[in-house]
Amino acid sequence: MNKKVSTIRKQVDSQLLATASLENLYRIFTVPEAPNTTLGAIDKEISLNLMGFLTDRIVAREKSLPAIEQDFQVSKVPEVPQFVSDYTDFVMQKLVAHSVHTAAPGFIGHMATPLPYFMLPLSRIMVALNQNLVKIETSKAFTPLERQVLGMLHHLIFQQSDEFYEENLHNSKKALGTFCSGGTIANITALWVARNQMFKAQPGFDGLAKAGLPAALIHYGYKKAVILVSERGHYSLGKAADVLGIGRNNVVSIDTDSKFKIDLKALRQKCEQLKSEGAAIIAMIGIAGATETGHVDPLEEMAQIAEEFGAHFHVDAAWGGPTLLSNTHKHILKGIERADSVTIDAHKQLYVPQGAGMVVFKEASLLGAVEHHAEYILRAGSKDLGQYSLEGSRPGMAMLVHAAFHIIGRHGYQILIDQNIEKARVFADLIKQHPEFELITEPELSILNYRYVPSHIQMALKKANPKLQSDVNALLDKVTKRMQKQQRAAGKTFVSRTRFSVFKYNKEPISVFRVVLANPMTTVETLRAILVEQSNLAKRDGTQKILNEIRELLELVP
Amino acid sequence: MNKKVSTIRKQVDSQLLATASLENLYRIFTVPEAPNTTLGAIDKEISLNLMGFLTDRIVAREKSLPAIEQDFQVSKVPEVPQFVSDYTDFVMQKLVAHSVHTAAPGFIGHMATPLPYFMLPLSRIMVALNQNLVKIETSKAFTPLERQVLGMLHHLIFQQSDEFYEENLHNSKKALGTFCSGGTIANITALWVARNQMFKAQPGFDGLAKAGLPAALIHYGYKKAVILVSERGHYSLGKAADVLGIGRNNVVSIDTDSKFKIDLKALRQKCEQLKSEGAAIIAMIGIAGATETGHVDPLEEMAQIAEEFGAHFHVDAAWGGPTLLSNTHKHILKGIERADSVTIDAHKQLYVPQGAGMVVFKEASLLGAVEHHAEYILRAGSKDLGQYSLEGSRPGMAMLVHAAFHIIGRHGYQILIDQNIEKARVFADLIKQHPEFELITEPELSILNYRYVPSHIQMALKKANPKLQSDVNALLDKVTKRMQKQQRAAGKTFVSRTRFSVFKYNKEPISVFRVVLANPMTTVETLRAILVEQSNLAKRDGTQKILNEIRELLELVP
Repeated sequence: MNKKVSTIRKQVDSQLLATASLENLYRIFTVPEAPNTTLGAIDKEISLNLMGFLTDRIVAREKSLPAIEQDFQVSKVPEVPQFVSDYTDFVMQKLVAHSVHTAAPGFIGHMATPLPYFMLPLSRIMVALNQNLVKIETSKAFTPLERQVLGMLHHLIFQQSDEFYEENLHNSKKALGTFCSGGTIANITALWVARNQMFKAQPGFDGLAKAGLPAALIHYGYKKAVILVSERGHYSLGKAADVLGIGRNNVVSIDTDSKFKIDLKALRQKCEQLKSEGAAIIAMIGIAGATETGHVDPLEEMAQIAEEFGAHFHVDAAWGGPTLLSNTHKHILKGIERADSVTIDAHKQLYVPQGAGMVVFKEASLLGAVEHHAEYILRAGSKDLGQYSLEGSRPGMAMLVHAAFHIIGRHGYQILIDQNIEKARVFADLIKQHPEFELITEPELSILNYRYVPSHIQMALKKANPKLQSDVNALLDKVTKRMQKQQRAAGKTFVSRTRFSVFKYNKEPISVFRVVLANPMTTVETLRAILVEQSNLAKRDGTQKILNEIRELLELVP
Repeated sequence: MNKKVSTIRKQVDSQLLATASLENLYRIFTVPEAPNTTLGAIDKEISLNLMGFLTDRIVAREKSLPAIEQDFQVSKVPEVPQFVSDYTDFVMQKLVAHSVHTAAPGFIGHMATPLPYFMLPLSRIMVALNQNLVKIETSKAFTPLERQVLGMLHHLIFQQSDEFYEENLHNSKKALGTFCSGGTIANITALWVARNQMFKAQPGFDGLAKAGLPAALIHYGYKKAVILVSERGHYSLGKAADVLGIGRNNVVSIDTDSKFKIDLKALRQKCEQLKSEGAAIIAMIGIAGATETGHVDPLEEMAQIAEEFGAHFHVDAAWGGPTLLSNTHKHILKGIERADSVTIDAHKQLYVPQGAGMVVFKEASLLGAVEHHAEYILRAGSKDLGQYSLEGSRPGMAMLVHAAFHIIGRHGYQILIDQNIEKARVFADLIKQHPEFELITEPELSILNYRYVPSHIQMALKKANPKLQSDVNALLDKVTKRMQKQQRAAGKTFVSRTRFSVFKYNKEPISVFRVVLANPMTTVETLRAILVEQSNLAKRDGTQKILNEIRELLELVP
């Protein structure tokens, strides 16, 4: 009896059923989740209190990955349908509980931002409409909207005249950029365009798009094709070189100076050397907000060098691009207006959900280098955006960028960006004043790196010879790695870790904590608390043992 | 006074404000949209009645694109924040109203499907969590979930042993596939793997990934590298060849037979010819559900030929893959289990929102050909999925596929797929019985093509000489194009149009209506009504004039 009642309740609750029949299937398309069902209640909970949902529903303390994997072991598609309420219970307990609270004020380790509330109902509108931006026939007004968003970004960077935008914004033969799932696809698109543009069609040659890269090199008489970027370039650039057939070895890495910016002299010398070796310099990439250190390359000077050597100048501003929305700090990106193309991620400092990347091109005709058509869509002369995109079917994410531009406005973004940078500077000061930490990179935007090194070790390390420095740093790397893992496992706060060459340590790579400040809810108190937590973690036996080894090496009295 | 009250109301309504201040900005991250605000009300409306929302809020009758563009003309990011309620009004009137009701039962022109209700609240959970699947540190349980979804798809296709999945499903050194934004990225990934795998590292050669395609051809002693697919291959394959540096000219197009399937004899001959010319056959692509006609290539036989010539065998099952969930029809895809890789889109016949593509590889080690690492994430030995993906940051869309697999189940999908195919057959019969239409492709899955040709013209055309057939078909193309545009503009129903070679008309390309049946709410009555609507459209003067021209050409008495 009880069982029967519960079964009937489940059917009512879930509006679905555990037997597949035609009639039942129609119901999942026609009968909504009632507010009193499990899933309906969760939906309401999120709508009323997003932060509460994330804080309450995600279990802070880390469950080991192998333990989580136990709940995702079945390798066959289930035969029989499951009740929505049962499935929702599973999702809440096994998935949501063990996901990552990336919007927590103390989660300052990756480029994850909290979402403004309006993003949730607007996302529902977007999902409900389920438009496909590849073509007008499945997106209509979304296509002009996307073009406008790209135009706004274009204007933010390149500041062209009103006439320019009047002519190009909705021009079926032009495109100011493409919207995509993220910065990696944006960077690949920029380099794809640069590659094809360099090896374009000529009498007797079909162009690289048709003839391929090997034939292009032969026709144009080059020995190889290369891309230049500083050693701080994002890993997507190596991936792009692989995908595009250029090869990772042909991503020429340029040294950085003491401020982690590209060494202009080394860049110029390398260009001259490559030219004399018969290499085609497809593109030079300036970084506006390095993934690991947040630094911005000298864009103005790079633009000059790129122009001299006839290379496409791409700026990877996936992280730092929105700095242009701040009149206080936009000068840091000076020279970006001379780029041929720029990548910006909206799911980073534009506070849009995951899956929103953009690349814009200064010249409205450049994307013609990768234009493509089909018979059933993307016909020449149509306004289908799919003619210029690497992806095919795409959701209407541009709507959320459009919304953010309007609801937050440039004024609002300026406050957010200024806050982020100010907070990074404050945190850098806290670290410098703290007797147990060493600041490794001064923040230029809102990213910085540091590590745990008690001041007496710092002082002795400074005076040590290079060999000894290297040995001590190897041990400090262990400390950094250990502490970062422990902090993550504790689940209260999170910093990430990375490893790169540091000028003051003979350009040897060292491991560091990496901090990205982009959450408006992160306060100075949050930052102080993180240093306290880390200081306590360092008192654990394992770390103390390594620190004692270091003291011995440096001949410090324990 | 009134103005002041209205202003205050707006502030209360929208929970935001038209002046950017720090305090106000915090509110957009901390104060939800109340249910009685404009946006809150819309959110509720969608939750309670998705179909009603789409039907009521989207204006059926087409507004011209230039007119829509007027609302998306501004090319500068707005300076001042806008009220959420004002912005919502704009979105509803200017964007939603003029988007496309792709879930309407009469919208049968593209691969757009309606969404089951549970997708909406589950999407909200996904957006709220805002996980980034590129790495464990920003996705945790989502990573094993995604691996499971890929494993389920792998099992559906390749049916490997339990031991195989136990060993590989959560193995940090292996990957059964990658999840991406759509079929195009999936196809590019498959061909990227095939290309790198063919030109892998050897003593004296770093491998294509590092050395690039030109060096790879030289090292391996090939004159060129090619990809083979029938003339019905999706346009993403040409794009893939461009991106990958292979070149569009090196996508070798193979003729199709009278049933729109690849001509196996022609395929084998071409392989032999290419081999003798010193070409490397990187991959051969079988189509399982051609974009335009829905046909499935003879996969078993293609697998055999691919094996003989040492080519990677990729199957593009973006559309047709889910047919494997139907025990009634899965035999149509016989041989797919011999593929090296398979593309399936979840946003097509798996009824998941836009932005969900997958590619799976039979061998769990194949994706190693495109493996990549970075210092701050994707470290070797980690379980970060970003090590194998073309994209970087990615949303947790796999959750929605996981949900659909569980809530719909294989039984549920079987009903959906069987319904789609059955409906296509019924529609084909209606067209064949109708005196005014000509069926051009018999449906194998749930896609078909037809055109408007009154039966007396059809009969005369059949007897005409090739030259006359060609002339008449050119005029009929005009009729098809004209009617399709008129039907779209009327906004009641929608079929798409395409153009391809047809065996019975001397393999000359003709324009046809294209129909994709995937909406469970589309009934036989909907289909009958579409034929009635088209028959009425054909009575318009412009079309009658062309038909009279045709009658004159064919010497038919009007």
